[in-house]
Amino acid sequence: MTDPMYTSSIPVFRQMLGSLAAILAKAEAYAAEKNIEPAALTQARLFPDMFPLRRQVQIACDFARGVSARLAGADVPKYDDEEQTFGELRDLIARTLGFIDGFTPAQFDGSARREIVVRAGTPKERRFDGQAYLLSYGLPQFFFHVTTAYALLRHNGVDIGKRDYMGQY
Amino acid sequence: MTDPMYTSSIPVFRQMLGSLAAILAKAEAYAAEKNIEPAALTQARLFPDMFPLRRQVQIACDFARGVSARLAGADVPKYDDEEQTFGELRDLIARTLGFIDGFTPAQFDGSARREIVVRAGTPKERRFDGQAYLLSYGLPQFFFHVTTAYALLRHNGVDIGKRDYMGQY
Repeated sequence: MTDPMYTSSIPVFRQMLGSLAAILAKAEAYAAEKNIEPAALTQARLFPDMFPLRRQVQIACDFARGVSARLAGADVPKYDDEEQTFGELRDLIARTLGFIDGFTPAQFDGSARREIVVRAGTPKERRFDGQAYLLSYGLPQFFFHVTTAYALLRHNGVDIGKRDYMGQY
Repeated sequence: MTDPMYTSSIPVFRQMLGSLAAILAKAEAYAAEKNIEPAALTQARLFPDMFPLRRQVQIACDFARGVSARLAGADVPKYDDEEQTFGELRDLIARTLGFIDGFTPAQFDGSARREIVVRAGTPKERRFDGQAYLLSYGLPQFFFHVTTAYALLRHNGVDIGKRDYMGQY
């Protein structure tokens, strides 16, 4: 049986990043149809001190890559976070999917007990075993940013529903 | 070792429902401080055809109870969904926490392979094994409603941040 740590991370990220890419495509089509400047959506925020859509997408991708890599004991890649347009954000998601698809289930063997350190060397340093890291930290963070991206677009009138959020499952 | 199906469900629901209760308490205090009618928040929506805050909380609780019960092979309790006030919503969360805390890890043994049927007998009937039901359906749905409740309150000016969303972990 595949290690539950793999099953509880990579396929979940894949499902939700796939839905996020499809939602962004709908948002881009909506902007074109309504003659809305695309940046009015990619820069939209739910409150002035919240991150805009583009950052929500970047952070969701960050967590998908970072959580996968840490559990697999691999290096966490650095991305430049310079995406601005819908096309660039969809490309970011595609690259993130390519990255996480590079892991094999075998790399997750034993990861439930692997020690994970986040924000190492800072006052906010936190140590987890891999299982707690995924379930009490990684997944809540990841879902937060995917859902907030959806909520931002829904709030701005994009015709999407729960089915779009859920993606292919 | 505790069955990963238990570890991936009950403690996750407990963490996020605890954070949701604390967020609602902050929202209630904010309404009192700013002389805002509490219903302006409990009935707030991010878009006219989205559910208001009170329903987001009810549905998050529904998923926590329903997913836990189905995985444990127990009956899914029916709640009346009549909560309107912050106090009633916090009480609903407390009752939901009491319900899910009634399950033991042993009840989740073998639940990864247990067949789960949702919307049985309807055109939308869907069959999953327990693992797919939790990871590709239950958790995404649960996090959707918790995050949307947070986003709704944040959008309405309640002074909450990611730390409030993450809860105790």
